[in-house]
Amino acid sequence: MANSKYEYVKKFEADDRLPPCNWIVVRIDGCHFHRFSADHEFEKPNDKNALNLMNSCAVSMLEHFPDIVFAYGVSDEYSFVLKETTQFYQRRASKILSLSVSYFTSLYVMKWKEFFPNKELKAPPSFDGRVICYPRGKIIQDYLAWRQVDCHINNQYNTCFWNLVNSGKTEREAQEFLKGTQSKDKNELLFQQFGINYNELPAMFRKGSCVYRDKVEETVKQDKGGNSIKRTRNKVVLAHIDIVGPKFWSEHQYILEEE
Amino acid sequence: MANSKYEYVKKFEADDRLPPCNWIVVRIDGCHFHRFSADHEFEKPNDKNALNLMNSCAVSMLEHFPDIVFAYGVSDEYSFVLKETTQFYQRRASKILSLSVSYFTSLYVMKWKEFFPNKELKAPPSFDGRVICYPRGKIIQDYLAWRQVDCHINNQYNTCFWNLVNSGKTEREAQEFLKGTQSKDKNELLFQQFGINYNELPAMFRKGSCVYRDKVEETVKQDKGGNSIKRTRNKVVLAHIDIVGPKFWSEHQYILEEE
Amino acid sequence: MANSKYEYVKKFEADDRLPPCNWIVVRIDGCHFHRFSADHEFEKPNDKNALNLMNSCAVSMLEHFPDIVFAYGVSDEYSFVLKETTQFYQRRASKILSLSVSYFTSLYVMKWKEFFPNKELKAPPSFDGRVICYPRGKIIQDYLAWRQVDCHINNQYNTCFWNLVNSGKTEREAQEFLKGTQSKDKNELLFQQFGINYNELPAMFRKGSCVYRDKVEETVKQDKGGNSIKRTRNKVVLAHIDIVGPKFWSEHQYILEEE
Amino acid sequence: MANSKYEYVKKFEADDRLPPCNWIVVRIDGCHFHRFSADHEFEKPNDKNALNLMNSCAVSMLEHFPDIVFAYGVSDEYSFVLKETTQFYQRRASKILSLSVSYFTSLYVMKWKEFFPNKELKAPPSFDGRVICYPRGKIIQDYLAWRQVDCHINNQYNTCFWNLVNSGKTEREAQEFLKGTQSKDKNELLFQQFGINYNELPAMFRKGSCVYRDKVEETVKQDKGGNSIKRTRNKVVLAHIDIVGPKFWSEHQYILEEE
Repeated sequence: MANSKYEYVKKFEADDRLPPCNWIVVRIDGCHFHRFSADHEFEKPNDKNALNLMNSCAVSMLEHFPDIVFAYGVSDEYSFVLKETTQFYQRRASKILSLSVSYFTSLYVMKWKEFFPNKELKAPPSFDGRVICYPRGKIIQDYLAWRQVDCHINNQYNTCFWNLVNSGKTEREAQEFLKGTQSKDKNELLFQQFGINYNELPAMFRKGSCVYRDKVEETVKQDKGGNSIKRTRNKVVLAHIDIVGPKFWSEHQYILEEE
Repeated sequence: MANSKYEYVKKFEADDRLPPCNWIVVRIDGCHFHRFSADHEFEKPNDKNALNLMNSCAVSMLEHFPDIVFAYGVSDEYSFVLKETTQFYQRRASKILSLSVSYFTSLYVMKWKEFFPNKELKAPPSFDGRVICYPRGKIIQDYLAWRQVDCHINNQYNTCFWNLVNSGKTEREAQEFLKGTQSKDKNELLFQQFGINYNELPAMFRKGSCVYRDKVEETVKQDKGGNSIKRTRNKVVLAHIDIVGPKFWSEHQYILEEE
Repeated sequence: MANSKYEYVKKFEADDRLPPCNWIVVRIDGCHFHRFSADHEFEKPNDKNALNLMNSCAVSMLEHFPDIVFAYGVSDEYSFVLKETTQFYQRRASKILSLSVSYFTSLYVMKWKEFFPNKELKAPPSFDGRVICYPRGKIIQDYLAWRQVDCHINNQYNTCFWNLVNSGKTEREAQEFLKGTQSKDKNELLFQQFGINYNELPAMFRKGSCVYRDKVEETVKQDKGGNSIKRTRNKVVLAHIDIVGPKFWSEHQYILEEE
Repeated sequence: MANSKYEYVKKFEADDRLPPCNWIVVRIDGCHFHRFSADHEFEKPNDKNALNLMNSCAVSMLEHFPDIVFAYGVSDEYSFVLKETTQFYQRRASKILSLSVSYFTSLYVMKWKEFFPNKELKAPPSFDGRVICYPRGKIIQDYLAWRQVDCHINNQYNTCFWNLVNSGKTEREAQEFLKGTQSKDKNELLFQQFGINYNELPAMFRKGSCVYRDKVEETVKQDKGGNSIKRTRNKVVLAHIDIVGPKFWSEHQYILEEE
């Protein structure tokens, strides 16, 4: 029984290969996570377990997909950077997008119990995603700086907001109170009113999370004389560090090197 | 702290809205499910539990996304048809694709235990997906016929193949044996050698699975005189029926009606 | 001397084939024709020679490109409809667009002398263009209705505007005068003040121009008995007729018939 | 009379803006110029007048479109490079493509008489075109090298071919004769058989044509003491030079400089 009569419908599938020599970013974002985090009683403004779960998934992503060279996460969002030369699924946008989002979602559900041993998943969590091409490594740096600056702006605001709410203000009052305040006003508020030194908050909250491969030295075994035999290998690491300034990138030039 | 310096990177995001008045198909497909089904010892050629899990996820998809009007599944693959007028996320391809794939994956992992109470998930299952536009309902019918004919061709072949293998042939011998055989040869083989009447195999194996909304009459309550009070409502139903011929579509014209 | 070292640059060329079973419209538009028409002293609001030149080019387009089934022109704009099944250059958008625009431009310059024997071209005329896909013939009808309604609105306004200007008003005064007027106010103005019955203006001004193939009967030769031997052939015709209502389309169903 | 009922058809127009920070190449190519050049009796393998006409059009292109920073032409083909930051028509691909092709075509027809005073245009010449994005200036250099190497390969072959044909071989015989020959074989053939030193052929034939802006010093006027007052200005120049090697680009770094 031939299928040829209907096979013409395959011609409607568009070729969606991304242009060569462009860095590829897949950014995923929790769908309706405002509600999801309320349903699962995430701590405000930052829930350590929820962030650790996201980060654990991101680490597994880099271990699973060798073409991801860097990931940056904040809140319920994660950006994955694929190297400019990747030939993963011939650079087809829908393959790259769907597989990234699907694998991340799968990890998130499977790892849930590890991070929330006492909470049942009440509804299926899902993530939307998009794929973006960037023509130069320098612009990828700017992209990541954009996300990290956004992390800072949101975290500072949310820290003030939830401290105000927890100290008795309504959400609307807290919002009104913060309207028009500058960065230093917010730091001042936290310090004066709540005794919080913003810069001493956990780096994971202030800086977000970076996942990448680093060269680490490992002791493989000891030789007969008792000396350690070491080797260097690429290991996926997690760090909460500044990626807006040039320091990180000058120390890790291999990450965004162009061919 | 303004983010404006880096916000230019947003301009690289392309507008990927799908053209109006086109039916949208999202087809998802298990990633490396050949290996996944081996790892989880799925029965060959068809594992009822695995298919029931897929179908259960598909039913939940239609309950969750009202703009999906029809779904067709076979093996580790499912096609979801969104109505031509859908304005779901302004028809943005990457939103539609990523959310469908992500939600389906989430359901698959969460429902696993229900269908495989004695099997642990050994690795995160994932699905790739693609989005395709079809300009007319008639072509959607052809698209679905293409998938159902494919289901038949594959199922008939696989039924022969695994019966041959289970009766002692190697996989290579079974493959050689079937090379060049026609549809009726395969039916003959099944009947003569294995006593199987192909047309009496479960419809789910032969026809795949259709999920759609049907008008069903429900008894709401009884009135004082003991008479049933009924109402009609749209219910998501699952059926293993022919959708190649015109019968189903003439009885369910509302599914692919154009505005 | 091999070229292979540099040939990788070809990979940056995107596949821009338009989806099958969609009608294709190429709409071209004079670039800076406000200035071009002033430089060449076109009559206002309508210059018959300029319109005849546009129409002559459109007729040549249909004679040259057999896959164009209909064209509609108004002012310095022309829309060309390619049939849904066209395989012209494998439906590649940039081929279809560039060749249509280029050939039209070439015709415009070459035919100029024929319609403006006493005017030199002072600068190279050029046209921009775009390609649009429409999934159904009914929507093509709406597209063409959109252009013809636009023709009417603009022509009625411009006829009022230029009569006011020619009778002594400044352009700004004429504009102010017409602000907020309805269709029937404008007809009234033309009739009362300038003795113009709008509906008696040339159909080419009011309806724009349609170009399509029509079956015409031709006398090929006379037989021995003196009887005419006739044959029917497709001839490209030009008409200034209503295409908003159903009449034209029901009389010319072959133009937008779908396979 | 409102047009709103039909205006929905505008929604089918896709957003085709090219991604930021990419260099844009518009390459145009004579349509059926094999036949066009035969019809107009162009000299083989190179017709100086025809090439001068192409080059004159290209110079006018750079004078008309300030965002074109470089053009390279060979035979009936021309590539125009727009700078990576261009905001010409918001980088809309169809505007850039159609206007470039249309303006070039218009120039070609209008300038024809200047270069072929004794030949009438027998049919409307037309050009197809495509738009390609390149993410880095270095790749634009490779693109242009690709075209110039192609020019060399084709010109060397064609010079041999037409000399063989003009000396009595049929076209098929000439083709057979050249099959499998290397670059140095062809040079040898030209020298031994036809007394042609390939490297002494006109650079326009061997290298193609480059059009770009160069800083030139001009005498504006003389001061009272009779000294020339000069100023530097950007002038569009035409040159037949090597652009495969690094020399030209190191001397004209401003052309492909990135922001």
